[in-house]
Amino acid sequence: MSRAAAAFTHPLLRVPTPAGWIAQACEMPDVLLIDHANCEKKAASTALALMFAYAEDLELTGKMSRLAREELRHYEQVAKLIRSLRVTPQRLAPGRYAERLRRLVAKAEPHREVDLMICGAFIEARSCERFAALAPAIGAPLSDLFQGLHNAEARHHKVYLDLAARAAKRAGVALQVRIDEFAALEAELITAPDAVFRFHSGPPAAEVD
Amino acid sequence: MSRAAAAFTHPLLRVPTPAGWIAQACEMPDVLLIDHANCEKKAASTALALMFAYAEDLELTGKMSRLAREELRHYEQVAKLIRSLRVTPQRLAPGRYAERLRRLVAKAEPHREVDLMICGAFIEARSCERFAALAPAIGAPLSDLFQGLHNAEARHHKVYLDLAARAAKRAGVALQVRIDEFAALEAELITAPDAVFRFHSGPPAAEVD
Repeated sequence: MSRAAAAFTHPLLRVPTPAGWIAQACEMPDVLLIDHANCEKKAASTALALMFAYAEDLELTGKMSRLAREELRHYEQVAKLIRSLRVTPQRLAPGRYAERLRRLVAKAEPHREVDLMICGAFIEARSCERFAALAPAIGAPLSDLFQGLHNAEARHHKVYLDLAARAAKRAGVALQVRIDEFAALEAELITAPDAVFRFHSGPPAAEVD
Repeated sequence: MSRAAAAFTHPLLRVPTPAGWIAQACEMPDVLLIDHANCEKKAASTALALMFAYAEDLELTGKMSRLAREELRHYEQVAKLIRSLRVTPQRLAPGRYAERLRRLVAKAEPHREVDLMICGAFIEARSCERFAALAPAIGAPLSDLFQGLHNAEARHHKVYLDLAARAAKRAGVALQVRIDEFAALEAELITAPDAVFRFHSGPPAAEVD
């Protein structure tokens, strides 16, 4: 583990974004922006799906609705930058990250709700950590975008984590045990070599950090 | 056709909401509110689905993102009223309206995009017409909600209609012919007796207006 990784502390995440991923992101700003726009859309879509799945829980749906609106506003910011930089929109297949995390989500309730909320917390936490890692490394105007998003999204993982704690309490689930299981998988996905560069990918396969 | 229906003019809709539906809505405010909350969520979900389907079209995705945010904000307003009136949230099966309109949507592009936009325009237009019909008929605090939503959503059908016109032009489709086909079906769904009361249902089966 590098010195940077050893010093890294985060309430959820075990490892920092590898330097190899940051270097790759700086070399591929077009793909970074297009996949990031997709991620903001998917974040809104996930929140909306939870509003349908738990429609009678108005505390949850209210929080998810506000979260979805904020993600959509950020999508609009990214899309505006894509247009102003004349980046050509292209269809990108999603990376492995969210799909692999979702495989760990329990199929049956009440465990499913706990897991979905933990999963949301990790994706939000990692996104925000990447905004902070990108801001000083990438040039303007992307640095301004990521700094702004880091400030705006810093509390998003907490929205999910609070809902996870509530669901775990109701279900009699040991929350920290489950968080640790997701944390281990998340760290693996972030540090294992990845053949495809995306917003949530691991370091390049040829150059592991 | 009643006198009210004869005097009715709308850029898209052929018939006004039947008096029988308005009377039923006033008698079933709980179901009205819960289904209305579902409709706002579905409106956001439809807009988001279009953002995924036409991801490279940043003009379309920007408009749909702003529309989805507004629908979510309205969902939050309705949910707040549901909570303050202590209406018990319940799961409601959707009515026939949107599903029947969607059956008319072409499966293949470029016709599909034109149809999806026309379909969206009709659903938005009818929702807004119902807000205006409900506001003077239903008591406070629902009347205030519907008056506010009528003002806010009056231009929504136009967002879809402009996108329909753009898609039709690109596809060489005769827009008005297709609008007329949707208008005929929409009028039928709004005036034909309906066994189930919902925000977009027809008049009650036992009491056709």
